[in-house]
Amino acid sequence: MTSGSAPVPPPASGLDPEIAARLKRGADGLFPAIAQQYDTGEVLMLGWMDDEALHRTLTTGRCTYWSRSRQEYWVKGDTSGHVQHVKSVALDCDDDTVLVRVDQVGAACHTGDRTCFDAGTLPLAQ
Amino acid sequence: MTSGSAPVPPPASGLDPEIAARLKRGADGLFPAIAQQYDTGEVLMLGWMDDEALHRTLTTGRCTYWSRSRQEYWVKGDTSGHVQHVKSVALDCDDDTVLVRVDQVGAACHTGDRTCFDAGTLPLAQ
Repeated sequence: MTSGSAPVPPPASGLDPEIAARLKRGADGLFPAIAQQYDTGEVLMLGWMDDEALHRTLTTGRCTYWSRSRQEYWVKGDTSGHVQHVKSVALDCDDDTVLVRVDQVGAACHTGDRTCFDAGTLPLAQ
Repeated sequence: MTSGSAPVPPPASGLDPEIAARLKRGADGLFPAIAQQYDTGEVLMLGWMDDEALHRTLTTGRCTYWSRSRQEYWVKGDTSGHVQHVKSVALDCDDDTVLVRVDQVGAACHTGDRTCFDAGTLPLAQ
């Protein structure tokens, strides 16, 4: 009402309104979520969440993403068995990225690798 | 030429064409880059890169992002002194996210916190 550049309205979800009011989302309503193995510190993968996916992650104990390719909620491990049990969730200082510390069952990557970054090392040049 | 949904064209940059051909970018030409402390495993922050920022990160030894708020390249630490020395870079299995393992000088967060996630823990519900 007061600005020409309206923020993305938060979608209807079960998320705590105080958290929803803080969140900054991309134009598609999504924000990145980093999954990290809680004890070893391994960065397992990066997924995307909307408000409802974050709500489910905070309330069900299972890490839940929004699949951009399938356009549906994706409870990690429902198909593969490679569940992510949620240990803690933190929002970053800009309120636009989430870090989920999890206990990863088996491989986080669909290729069977432990993390999605295992096979992708890029060469450094001097 | 063969499809109705054209991919985002890679911008002109110094990035190795083989890596550029693999990269998948958002509609804004950017992709997320996770910075992790190489020895402790701490997830320090998430920034955004375009091809040129990744090229500079791979070739200068200093982690370089694209600042969405300032719309300019941002060599982490140039202003604050809180440099990120690049130890390794990996692309994920979907070719749309980068993990940069760094040696972080001082605080990664502009608030003075070691990481951008230190102050943002969200409550878990049962």
